Amino acid sequence: MKVIESITGMKQARWGLSGPVGLVPTMGYLHEGHISLVRRAKKENPSVVVSIFVNPTQFGPKEDFKKYPRDLPRDLALLEQAGTDVVFIPPDAEMYPSDYNTWVDMEKITGRLEGAARPGHFRGVATVCNKLFNIVEPAKAYFGQKDAQQVLVIQKMVKELNMNLEIVVCPIIREPDGLAMSSRNTYLKPDERQAATVLYRSLQLAQKLYDDGERDAGKIRRQMTALIQKEPLAHIEYISIADAANLEEQDKIVTPALVSMVVKIGLPRLLDNIILK
Amino acid sequence: MKVIESITGMKQARWGLSGPVGLVPTMGYLHEGHISLVRRAKKENPSVVVSIFVNPTQFGPKEDFKKYPRDLPRDLALLEQAGTDVVFIPPDAEMYPSDYNTWVDMEKITGRLEGAARPGHFRGVATVCNKLFNIVEPAKAYFGQKDAQQVLVIQKMVKELNMNLEIVVCPIIREPDGLAMSSRNTYLKPDERQAATVLYRSLQLAQKLYDDGERDAGKIRRQMTALIQKEPLAHIEYISIADAANLEEQDKIVTPALVSMVVKIGLPRLLDNIILK
Repeated sequence: MKVIESITGMKQARWGLSGPVGLVPTMGYLHEGHISLVRRAKKENPSVVVSIFVNPTQFGPKEDFKKYPRDLPRDLALLEQAGTDVVFIPPDAEMYPSDYNTWVDMEKITGRLEGAARPGHFRGVATVCNKLFNIVEPAKAYFGQKDAQQVLVIQKMVKELNMNLEIVVCPIIREPDGLAMSSRNTYLKPDERQAATVLYRSLQLAQKLYDDGERDAGKIRRQMTALIQKEPLAHIEYISIADAANLEEQDKIVTPALVSMVVKIGLPRLLDNIILK
Repeated sequence: MKVIESITGMKQARWGLSGPVGLVPTMGYLHEGHISLVRRAKKENPSVVVSIFVNPTQFGPKEDFKKYPRDLPRDLALLEQAGTDVVFIPPDAEMYPSDYNTWVDMEKITGRLEGAARPGHFRGVATVCNKLFNIVEPAKAYFGQKDAQQVLVIQKMVKELNMNLEIVVCPIIREPDGLAMSSRNTYLKPDERQAATVLYRSLQLAQKLYDDGERDAGKIRRQMTALIQKEPLAHIEYISIADAANLEEQDKIVTPALVSMVVKIGLPRLLDNIILK
């Protein structure tokens, strides 16, 4: 496994890789969710590149960029074990030189949900993915369904800028008690960790109500809210039931619909979602 | 010479082209300036693609998108003669489907000169070039120095988004009396056409003053202004003497400096520039 720490080095190494390349872009502090993407990439491509880059431009000024968890030695061991060919760790100063000012931006879809809560977040995400795709030139890039809106934004960017790769979306990987894996789960104290199971329980409730025939999004949202509010450590930021393609909120559910939520428990904003099909 | 009128068709044809590809993006209504780009591309690449696309997103709502001059049969004859391999003419509806909203945008450099005069213009230019580069995947793309700021914007985009091509800048091609060739010159009535020579004459004056040792940008600008004001049909929009790399206006000239101007004569805004080295 090669570890490459410059853009020029990555572009050179790219030509030494055999066949189409699968790319897994990450911010490091890897968990089983990331590794499931690497395994899928490995299965579908002769060569796999994993990038580790805590992208400063997708964090707001008051967000956790500086204290975002990092553990490079552990990440490298996990990636070696998963059969990664190249780990690409670009320096901030190469990705964003001091006079940097080219941005990929979108309207509408980036203004909703996470985009509304984190202004500029998706501009940073789209820009860094655009750059990584140009540097690595993958045939496929792998993203987790956990960041559902991110997936939609990147798919739309690839389509609309006519980029030459396919975005592969992989299922959410959960802890045994249902909590969606996330690098930010490390922020949770033991009682908060226990409380955090309420997200998935509320999504399961939504699925059950839907399966039983409920089509009123407002009613489902209210029952989810009531369930979560029983958990004193949980603070709902939003619960959304929206068109899974354009994220427009629905009153009456038309599938596929994305049920997504952010609940703050202690420090971290926890995200989770399911798709009603 | 193949003429291709769909994005899918172009992506397919791309793989049939031998070796690195040179791309000349145009808005059609070709003149010797464009053809000089095609010849240079032909000299430097085994295959040459010329795109013809009057890009709606780089025109303001009150600008000349609808009446921008078009003459496809003539364009095709000129391109065939110049040895073009593929002419790519994408339809508006494929380039910008109705729900399109991905934009490449820049700060600072796009807010000055033409960017100040035409808000959103360079967002449209950067976005369409980004798309064309992804569709055609050229090793080199050719642009004329006449649109000096456009060249800077595109070079900056390619560098900052880590795109895999080189931007080749070719000299301004002029009529025998010095007028820079432009598709919009067709808007000029005979007396206006005569008056239009004042742009290049004023640039030659700037060059002469500089050669004679003048380094005060304000003085040079004032003498250029005085010369142009002798021409009653000419209306100066701006005369700029700026750092050729970042377009910051200069008081004292430090080379390379871009002397650029827009003068309105009758209908069209005429652009011209020289670089003081």
